[in-house]
Amino acid sequence: MPARTAGRGATVWLTGLPGSGKSTIARAIAALVAQDVDVEILDGDELRATLSSDLGFSAADRDTHVRRVGFVAELLARHGTLVLVPVIAPYEGARQQVRRHHDDHGSTYVQVHVSTPLSECVRRDPKGLYDKALHGQLPGLTGVDDRYDEPPDPDIRVDTTDIDVETAAGQVCQVLADLELLQPVAVRPRQ
Amino acid sequence: MPARTAGRGATVWLTGLPGSGKSTIARAIAALVAQDVDVEILDGDELRATLSSDLGFSAADRDTHVRRVGFVAELLARHGTLVLVPVIAPYEGARQQVRRHHDDHGSTYVQVHVSTPLSECVRRDPKGLYDKALHGQLPGLTGVDDRYDEPPDPDIRVDTTDIDVETAAGQVCQVLADLELLQPVAVRPRQ
Repeated sequence: MPARTAGRGATVWLTGLPGSGKSTIARAIAALVAQDVDVEILDGDELRATLSSDLGFSAADRDTHVRRVGFVAELLARHGTLVLVPVIAPYEGARQQVRRHHDDHGSTYVQVHVSTPLSECVRRDPKGLYDKALHGQLPGLTGVDDRYDEPPDPDIRVDTTDIDVETAAGQVCQVLADLELLQPVAVRPRQ
Repeated sequence: MPARTAGRGATVWLTGLPGSGKSTIARAIAALVAQDVDVEILDGDELRATLSSDLGFSAADRDTHVRRVGFVAELLARHGTLVLVPVIAPYEGARQQVRRHHDDHGSTYVQVHVSTPLSECVRRDPKGLYDKALHGQLPGLTGVDDRYDEPPDPDIRVDTTDIDVETAAGQVCQVLADLELLQPVAVRPRQ
């Protein structure tokens, strides 16, 4: 769905288990929206190497990471960027803090739960993380020995088990269009 | 000088001693530029309460703070915002890292040295910091018992001892116009 912004930015946070398809969907969304949409993908791995290079994977550090990413995303969103955030954000508390931070600044926050089940994530294991975790070489992996709080009320749930990435990205774009954050470029005229 | 962006963002870092006038000049610049310029002021105190709430004032923590602020500023600048950063940034090394980070991403970095001398900053002491530091109640204040590296090659030096804030802001805006980051709205026609 080619689309353009309706003149306002937003944070679109894709939360989900490792390997659920968050980053792939984010890249597909960025490819789907029209050239004149100002898009940024705040990639979790890249941010951990820069903004959060001091942090590990304790519960406190995970929450700090999520709050920092939320702070940066909100600033960009407030200035008109469509900010895609494929970051696990495992705990409901920190996710709610990020949402409140957006509300406090009048910025739009959209939550996408990439709800691909654990069994499918383990089967895919694109980064080999589950393999390491299940062999005891990677302690604290979300979904294995660290908890993931299912978001109770996301704007959309996308389970990528039986759909391809373009379909998943299209479903998210449809939600963004419904929220008037994206608008179809070509609207079919009424007959 | 009413002005508008030439379509690209930039980071304008105002470095200088506490009380030199950085934040006041930043607010005056934001008031001077035209309504259609997308401006953000990344205020040091506010960022220390949020993005850098874990950091103190050791040399390492100061550098980390400056790098984090530089990371956020670059993202905003890359997306077209004129980012004003009134943050002390006392050490040359971290300032150069921020400049390189901007260069690496093709983003514009402008350095303003608010060079109001220490004696004048102490005389003004708008936050009472020097008074505390000189009475031994605030260790590690830049300019008193922590060093401030004079920037060797800023884009502009502004000493506010003998000029008012509007004049100082106008001087910075002129530099931004010379760099084609701002353009005068009303250009006087040639006679």
